[in-house]
Amino acid sequence: MAAAALVLHGPNLNLLGTREPGVYGRTSLAAVDRLVKDHGRRRGLRVECRQSNHEGQLIDWLQAARSEGFMGVVFNPGAFTHYSIALRDAVAGIDVPVVEVHLSNVHAREEFRRVSVIAAAARGQISGFGPDSYLLGLDALLTLTRARAGRRR
Amino acid sequence: MAAAALVLHGPNLNLLGTREPGVYGRTSLAAVDRLVKDHGRRRGLRVECRQSNHEGQLIDWLQAARSEGFMGVVFNPGAFTHYSIALRDAVAGIDVPVVEVHLSNVHAREEFRRVSVIAAAARGQISGFGPDSYLLGLDALLTLTRARAGRRR
Amino acid sequence: MAAAALVLHGPNLNLLGTREPGVYGRTSLAAVDRLVKDHGRRRGLRVECRQSNHEGQLIDWLQAARSEGFMGVVFNPGAFTHYSIALRDAVAGIDVPVVEVHLSNVHAREEFRRVSVIAAAARGQISGFGPDSYLLGLDALLTLTRARAGRRR
Amino acid sequence: MAAAALVLHGPNLNLLGTREPGVYGRTSLAAVDRLVKDHGRRRGLRVECRQSNHEGQLIDWLQAARSEGFMGVVFNPGAFTHYSIALRDAVAGIDVPVVEVHLSNVHAREEFRRVSVIAAAARGQISGFGPDSYLLGLDALLTLTRARAGRRR
Amino acid sequence: MAAAALVLHGPNLNLLGTREPGVYGRTSLAAVDRLVKDHGRRRGLRVECRQSNHEGQLIDWLQAARSEGFMGVVFNPGAFTHYSIALRDAVAGIDVPVVEVHLSNVHAREEFRRVSVIAAAARGQISGFGPDSYLLGLDALLTLTRARAGRRR
Amino acid sequence: MAAAALVLHGPNLNLLGTREPGVYGRTSLAAVDRLVKDHGRRRGLRVECRQSNHEGQLIDWLQAARSEGFMGVVFNPGAFTHYSIALRDAVAGIDVPVVEVHLSNVHAREEFRRVSVIAAAARGQISGFGPDSYLLGLDALLTLTRARAGRRR
Amino acid sequence: MAAAALVLHGPNLNLLGTREPGVYGRTSLAAVDRLVKDHGRRRGLRVECRQSNHEGQLIDWLQAARSEGFMGVVFNPGAFTHYSIALRDAVAGIDVPVVEVHLSNVHAREEFRRVSVIAAAARGQISGFGPDSYLLGLDALLTLTRARAGRRR
Amino acid sequence: MAAAALVLHGPNLNLLGTREPGVYGRTSLAAVDRLVKDHGRRRGLRVECRQSNHEGQLIDWLQAARSEGFMGVVFNPGAFTHYSIALRDAVAGIDVPVVEVHLSNVHAREEFRRVSVIAAAARGQISGFGPDSYLLGLDALLTLTRARAGRRR
Amino acid sequence: MAAAALVLHGPNLNLLGTREPGVYGRTSLAAVDRLVKDHGRRRGLRVECRQSNHEGQLIDWLQAARSEGFMGVVFNPGAFTHYSIALRDAVAGIDVPVVEVHLSNVHAREEFRRVSVIAAAARGQISGFGPDSYLLGLDALLTLTRARAGRRR
Amino acid sequence: MAAAALVLHGPNLNLLGTREPGVYGRTSLAAVDRLVKDHGRRRGLRVECRQSNHEGQLIDWLQAARSEGFMGVVFNPGAFTHYSIALRDAVAGIDVPVVEVHLSNVHAREEFRRVSVIAAAARGQISGFGPDSYLLGLDALLTLTRARAGRRR
Amino acid sequence: MAAAALVLHGPNLNLLGTREPGVYGRTSLAAVDRLVKDHGRRRGLRVECRQSNHEGQLIDWLQAARSEGFMGVVFNPGAFTHYSIALRDAVAGIDVPVVEVHLSNVHAREEFRRVSVIAAAARGQISGFGPDSYLLGLDALLTLTRARAGRRR
Amino acid sequence: MAAAALVLHGPNLNLLGTREPGVYGRTSLAAVDRLVKDHGRRRGLRVECRQSNHEGQLIDWLQAARSEGFMGVVFNPGAFTHYSIALRDAVAGIDVPVVEVHLSNVHAREEFRRVSVIAAAARGQISGFGPDSYLLGLDALLTLTRARAGRRR
Repeated sequence: MAAAALVLHGPNLNLLGTREPGVYGRTSLAAVDRLVKDHGRRRGLRVECRQSNHEGQLIDWLQAARSEGFMGVVFNPGAFTHYSIALRDAVAGIDVPVVEVHLSNVHAREEFRRVSVIAAAARGQISGFGPDSYLLGLDALLTLTRARAGRRR
Repeated sequence: MAAAALVLHGPNLNLLGTREPGVYGRTSLAAVDRLVKDHGRRRGLRVECRQSNHEGQLIDWLQAARSEGFMGVVFNPGAFTHYSIALRDAVAGIDVPVVEVHLSNVHAREEFRRVSVIAAAARGQISGFGPDSYLLGLDALLTLTRARAGRRR
Repeated sequence: MAAAALVLHGPNLNLLGTREPGVYGRTSLAAVDRLVKDHGRRRGLRVECRQSNHEGQLIDWLQAARSEGFMGVVFNPGAFTHYSIALRDAVAGIDVPVVEVHLSNVHAREEFRRVSVIAAAARGQISGFGPDSYLLGLDALLTLTRARAGRRR
Repeated sequence: MAAAALVLHGPNLNLLGTREPGVYGRTSLAAVDRLVKDHGRRRGLRVECRQSNHEGQLIDWLQAARSEGFMGVVFNPGAFTHYSIALRDAVAGIDVPVVEVHLSNVHAREEFRRVSVIAAAARGQISGFGPDSYLLGLDALLTLTRARAGRRR
Repeated sequence: MAAAALVLHGPNLNLLGTREPGVYGRTSLAAVDRLVKDHGRRRGLRVECRQSNHEGQLIDWLQAARSEGFMGVVFNPGAFTHYSIALRDAVAGIDVPVVEVHLSNVHAREEFRRVSVIAAAARGQISGFGPDSYLLGLDALLTLTRARAGRRR
Repeated sequence: MAAAALVLHGPNLNLLGTREPGVYGRTSLAAVDRLVKDHGRRRGLRVECRQSNHEGQLIDWLQAARSEGFMGVVFNPGAFTHYSIALRDAVAGIDVPVVEVHLSNVHAREEFRRVSVIAAAARGQISGFGPDSYLLGLDALLTLTRARAGRRR
Repeated sequence: MAAAALVLHGPNLNLLGTREPGVYGRTSLAAVDRLVKDHGRRRGLRVECRQSNHEGQLIDWLQAARSEGFMGVVFNPGAFTHYSIALRDAVAGIDVPVVEVHLSNVHAREEFRRVSVIAAAARGQISGFGPDSYLLGLDALLTLTRARAGRRR
Repeated sequence: MAAAALVLHGPNLNLLGTREPGVYGRTSLAAVDRLVKDHGRRRGLRVECRQSNHEGQLIDWLQAARSEGFMGVVFNPGAFTHYSIALRDAVAGIDVPVVEVHLSNVHAREEFRRVSVIAAAARGQISGFGPDSYLLGLDALLTLTRARAGRRR
Repeated sequence: MAAAALVLHGPNLNLLGTREPGVYGRTSLAAVDRLVKDHGRRRGLRVECRQSNHEGQLIDWLQAARSEGFMGVVFNPGAFTHYSIALRDAVAGIDVPVVEVHLSNVHAREEFRRVSVIAAAARGQISGFGPDSYLLGLDALLTLTRARAGRRR
Repeated sequence: MAAAALVLHGPNLNLLGTREPGVYGRTSLAAVDRLVKDHGRRRGLRVECRQSNHEGQLIDWLQAARSEGFMGVVFNPGAFTHYSIALRDAVAGIDVPVVEVHLSNVHAREEFRRVSVIAAAARGQISGFGPDSYLLGLDALLTLTRARAGRRR
Repeated sequence: MAAAALVLHGPNLNLLGTREPGVYGRTSLAAVDRLVKDHGRRRGLRVECRQSNHEGQLIDWLQAARSEGFMGVVFNPGAFTHYSIALRDAVAGIDVPVVEVHLSNVHAREEFRRVSVIAAAARGQISGFGPDSYLLGLDALLTLTRARAGRRR
Repeated sequence: MAAAALVLHGPNLNLLGTREPGVYGRTSLAAVDRLVKDHGRRRGLRVECRQSNHEGQLIDWLQAARSEGFMGVVFNPGAFTHYSIALRDAVAGIDVPVVEVHLSNVHAREEFRRVSVIAAAARGQISGFGPDSYLLGLDALLTLTRARAGRRR
């Protein structure tokens, strides 16, 4: 049963609120996590949030998502978006659905931020809505799960 | 008051349901429009849906959105995503917020479909969730409007 | 039954005969159309010829080809060959066969004219034979239709 | 006799004055047209101004310029500058001289705005002088016409 | 008098019918040659067919075409299409007309198959119609020869 | 007070009239300078013309333009247009307005001539009108100065 | 004395058997390790196998290989193959020989998988033979060691 | 029954032992062939070795491998590795398995030697082990054949 | 008060003295650290030195630099220089000044070593002076701190 | 004996203090030279400072540095950094050590400013510390000289 | 003793005199060979001239040059210049000096003709002097041989 | 009458003999000039040799060659070869024939040295023969002049 979702934050997202607030806003990561958990609760979903600056740690968490009982992952890979093929392979290698989210509109920033090496392995991508990107990501996960359930019947 | 939203479909989206169903699914455009309108109604929002194969027509509609009373636009530019700088300039030139949406995960398709020349001018981008991309786009618009309203107070 | 074919001419082909005659020859578009119709008649095929400078109009015509009763399209996309992904999607989205033709040998001209973004979606491409490219295109269409009919039996 | 000139404005130029005023200034398109017409009048030239967001419409107007009696065209292709090979072919295919103009200094903006696919087919290019780019364009047209007249004698 | 045409098949075309039948079909090269000869006979043309895996052999044959009395060459350069500048120079260096043909639609395959270094030196290119590409190529040759004869008179 | 303008000619422009006349025309540099001075005189402007094949000399002149009392510079950087970042920095580093001009339509020539590393630092660019490019450049300078004077009031 | 070899598996290889079995086969990593150890035993070699999703961990292991008494390393860097210059430097910085191996034929997959930033620092590369790539890698190591021993004498 | 294997050496490999010994070692091709034959004999495999500087000859040999009774080919394409798409097509067009081998570590040499246009069509690639690359290639062939035999049962 | 500085060494720098001594010299990392600490002491600065092969660990240390009381960081990112956008974001996200240093002259080495994705976020870069690069880096930090202190007054 | 050092300033550095002060600061070149000379004096070094906008002049000075008795050169090539291969060759062709310095952090500016064609020939590069870049450059020179002296003994 | 030189002509050079005479002149290959032999005779050198359209034949001839007693080779690789890495390796693999010559100035022709993959392995390159390129090539060979002889003494 | 030739040496060639002798040899420029003058004398030609590090000076000399009575120029542009479009334009703009020469084989050096922006405007190019490149260049000039004289008659 799809009762819990995992939210993963990549490198430097723990600096949220103090790091380049012109780009990323002034909300701290703890505040974002509260918003996401509240939003999940309203949809009957327990949400667990984790952050790491370590690529390997994020891969470990993705690989364990299924056995830890998560029905899906909302994943902001931060800077790893642009070069971590290892994370891409992790997303492609598990069968828990993953939705890639970004706080800022990556398409309106530096050239190198417009390319995601991970997106091709994710189910979809949502970017540009600040903390709301995570909330929309959760809703997208629910949609994907329902569609799958629908197909199964 | 933000009571109406505009949904714009770009070229060939009128073929939905019959065109490459492996990529785009079997739901017709009329069915998608019904889903979007129902979704809007549940959020207290009147939704108007238009489709055109003509780049100039889409520009005209974007430019008129404000005076026609729309609080925002959910826009699937179809193939224009990848080359219509004129649509990018239209999105950048109006002050009604625009959310770019795609049915398929454009990042998992041909090389040339991974680049959006329009996204940098839009508020954000949502791709990969089939018809649900539009529904998430509507929710994103509402979020943006509320945030703006919040800032205004 | 394969009794009618559509010939579509893209932008600026209406200037034929006066435009850069060194490249495109001195035959007017009306004369080309007469040649194509005569050729069709000899093969028992009614041919209808249309020209437009409007990308959207060409997409509309391609989408309507089937319901208008055409068994195939001979299409010279003109300058749209090199950038109109919307036309490519239209060609890929309909199930009427399309043959791409060019008057000049596009491979012997400017760098940017050597690439066709449409060809991958067409059945085949014929270029370099002046107005005869259209006649060969009609014959190619007939061949494709017969092959299909053969497979059906 | 060279008594009338055509001024063509490409997509989104009708937004002039409200669209990104930091880049394009606060003068409306109507005001620009008045400046251009006054300038023409001082040189004994009737000036007609047209704007369209439709690539096909602009091609149609260029093709008809000669038969409508215009001695030349001052053309700001807007965003079409960067990808409309169809407009390039139209400019190359008519024998009325065309001068390409831009309000802003396109060379000091985004990478993709530095390339004009149309300029090679135009007689010359003038960019960076705001509405005065059009006035200089008119003067350039007059110069070209006189030079031609001179050669004819 | 134009009584004989040469058909040249490049490397690996002798594997036709067994090699990647999903791409190249199940007709053997011998069968293709019969089709081409029959087609030629119906047009009053003797057709000679040769195949080689040796670039140098193909160059020798092209250079000798005129003295061997062929009025033109239908040439499928196979993989040499993409890198043999020596074949390009041979095609450019003889004054017998050459038509380049391909069984498959090369534009819908791997990136490196979309570029022909030979096409710029040939009269035209026909691709995507299976064995019929050769038949259309023969017809194109006849057309070119007639046009030339017409000009001579 | 804006009573004098400086016209700078870059390398090889002293060969004008004898160098590739098909591209650059048959007017000598002395004749061009007379045209420019006459044009200036008609607008109440003293014009001084200098030519150098030395990049460093041109930089020195640009840097001294203000203290020498020139209200602006019309600058044809010749071949330096395409690689002299030092000239670009000089243009950017002085506060006298600079208008870049070219005799030929650089966009219709070799690939490497289409890029100006200087244009981004100039106020605008005028190309393709032969010696008239300089006259239009003078007019553009006057326009810029008046606009500035207008803003000052 | 060369009695022990180290086998290193990079990120996501612990998913072997369940991850994209069409590409990587259905053998689990534990089974591969057994095959490799058996193969080593037949050649009188103790083999130790380790896997990590952490780039830094793999670097630590490579650096320690010598002091841990390994005569060589068979290394499948997984996705790190394509971007980890840090692993390349580790391979280049130790004097234990390293053989790079891949299960799949990386040259027949996505463009970005064809480039190895590590291979230039390794002794050689073996790819495409499934679990046998590791066995061939062990044999290659033995060969290198014997050659070195031979040179020493 | 798999009793014989073919070893093909591409251009200039006949110079082995005298050509750039710093890169390719001092073993002559005859000596390499003896090593390979001995190695084959130990595995119950007759090995035939051939060398040619002629691309066409190598294609002919590849195409004939099956009918000549070889169970597989160990192929060092030499310089053809980097541009012979005709050899790639030959390897792809036959159903005898081909293993690509290289004496030197091609990834540690000039930029252009890092790309193999043939590898995508081969079963796998082994590079960097000097003459041992051939021996490992033979073993890889045996492995592939056994796997196939296993699947057949 | 600026009493302590952090020196961070990236991956493989712990191999210093044994790794490619032709490039990196024969001084061990411990010896470098002693030099740096002595240099700091002479400037009244306590220096702490840390090395890690783990990208995530380096990010953690950068993020903690401020709360650990360091007035600045001298950072040699080693191979991460060329691809770790996560480290770039960490450097940009903290407000402790960071000076990037390199032992070797990275501009005189392989192509890929000439690009630093981190430098744009650092205050400055010093490369090519062996262990002295670190000492110059410390001096640079002191300079930056004094300048800042000066501005504050 | 190392008693005198040469400081060379490239093009437009004489504008320092007035040119783009946001990028280059408000200190004049004369003030920078005083700082550098004072710094040299404190290290027992006479410093001579020269500036030129002429590439050839800078080459002449570099070539004469040895015979003029300078023990090293601190060189800010300004815009020449990015294209003057002649200066690179001069730096490589003399045996006086050269340290390249930049006021601004060139890596954080326009794309074309990130590449130095000179750095590969210099001993090292220091950028981003304003006038202090020169002082650090002097210290680096002293270090290099001492190291060399040390090696000589 | 250096008594004989080999002159090799690549593909299509046998067409000389009839092939694109605007580029290659009207002298036949036989006439060129006579000029070269006469020139050799005047320098006491027997010259043998061979032409082939077969890459493999040219490699065979290069490899045999030494044992056939030639003191050097003057080689015009024709179109192979631009892609035959096999010829490059042959030139690098023999120790007879090779001088690359071209009739036309390859640098003034199509983009792809400006690159020689062979030149890096040859001793030098001479291009642009028509048949005289061969004569200058012979003289260059003599020079190289004398220099070598000088060094030997 | 063709009695005098000009030899121009570009930047840093005055360092010849001391600069990177591994690449450029140990002969001084004075010695080269003596060789060239002697060679000229043997052919009845007065040779004048000049060197400059100043691009502008070289342009001035090229422009004056005709009026100074030189029948041709042998030009080694040194580092300017790779970027001085101004020198290219000077070579193209004068009608005295220019032969480009290089001491080293530029094709066997750094990537950026393989491209000559000047060669397309010169008559031909000779590289790789040390000081003999100049002598061959003189001979080439004589050949060109004789050919021209021949055509004139």
